[in-house]
Amino acid sequence: MDPVKVIEIKKSVFADNDQDADALRKELKGKGVYLLNLMSSPGSGKTTTLIRTLNLLKDKLRVAVMEADIDSDVDAIKIKEATGVPSIQLHTGGMCHLDAEMTRQGLDHVDMDGVDLVILENVGNLVCPAEFDTGACRNAMILSVPEGHDKPLKYPLMFSVCDLVLVNKTDVMPYFDFDLEKCREYVRLRNPKATVLPICAKTGEGVEAFAQWLLEEVRNWKKQ
Amino acid sequence: MDPVKVIEIKKSVFADNDQDADALRKELKGKGVYLLNLMSSPGSGKTTTLIRTLNLLKDKLRVAVMEADIDSDVDAIKIKEATGVPSIQLHTGGMCHLDAEMTRQGLDHVDMDGVDLVILENVGNLVCPAEFDTGACRNAMILSVPEGHDKPLKYPLMFSVCDLVLVNKTDVMPYFDFDLEKCREYVRLRNPKATVLPICAKTGEGVEAFAQWLLEEVRNWKKQ
Repeated sequence: MDPVKVIEIKKSVFADNDQDADALRKELKGKGVYLLNLMSSPGSGKTTTLIRTLNLLKDKLRVAVMEADIDSDVDAIKIKEATGVPSIQLHTGGMCHLDAEMTRQGLDHVDMDGVDLVILENVGNLVCPAEFDTGACRNAMILSVPEGHDKPLKYPLMFSVCDLVLVNKTDVMPYFDFDLEKCREYVRLRNPKATVLPICAKTGEGVEAFAQWLLEEVRNWKKQ
Repeated sequence: MDPVKVIEIKKSVFADNDQDADALRKELKGKGVYLLNLMSSPGSGKTTTLIRTLNLLKDKLRVAVMEADIDSDVDAIKIKEATGVPSIQLHTGGMCHLDAEMTRQGLDHVDMDGVDLVILENVGNLVCPAEFDTGACRNAMILSVPEGHDKPLKYPLMFSVCDLVLVNKTDVMPYFDFDLEKCREYVRLRNPKATVLPICAKTGEGVEAFAQWLLEEVRNWKKQ
């Protein structure tokens, strides 16, 4: 297998990120490509979730993955080896988030005529990535059970900008004081329209629902 | 019990944070006050660890706590209720880190003549807080078992600037693929002098060693 492509992302020069993000979304629309921005804390299971999901989706959609990380390449390699889906690694060079221009630098290395869905795995961080519109069609996030159900209270912006919250690592629920109903209630406080899906990326439980959500999103995006 | 004091932190105006941090450390030295900057991901157990540690230390040292959070007050209230130790809440107003001037804004509300040790619980984030010297005597961090032993590879700067890494939630080690020896090896790659202490804040296991580390640190700081 070829080594994964590693892109060193440069700092953006655009003054108005929101405007740039809207322009990128319009371009994506024109090309019929759906971009999902997936965010979470470090270690919440983004890569494992993606592997499970891609294996369910790859025969139904043409997918590519961009893995943003400060320094290492391990995630893009893992994705490519476990799913065969084209994956590139974006090195942010210490930067704590991606904006629209940085996302575009990654997309320049994706075969945009050959994909329906691009998943951007953002830097593991519940604060800064929420502040920058990447140009994605939707934001989704993973909250893992060990992090606690109070996170929507402590990281309000992240939960406000996400339309989908995957509650991962449900297999360890018995070992943590995690209240799923309270979690749903706190998520609703931040974003009443958000969907909450409990999953276990390790066992695969619930991941089908995420794949289904993505399928419908991509279909609607292409139809509209 | 009085409600906790909530300080709304303003953005810093100082151009040179490193210089400002050195000046703050010198002031702390003059007053015989040791400041620890405690960092971690969201949900790694900083507050629970502090509660255990403060209950071991509070009869040996005069301690105060500053809890930084983007928005909520829950941590400072928890600390105060569970330990009786003076705790104030710093609201960062969406900011993802604290620098020296922001730390000083918090210290202005601490009785500096009446304390030996101030613990600053930084914003839950493995990226940005590592980039800003707060003026603390030492940086410490918590990595929790569910986050995975590969985090020193992915968040290199955080592990480089910390002299102590607490590996928390060891009670759930059997349910996660966490390799403590690999973790130690990766931490050493980033900072060969760092101490790694496995703890379980929930049961209290290992927390005594952290309290002992702090006691010695404070004694050495006052002696030097």
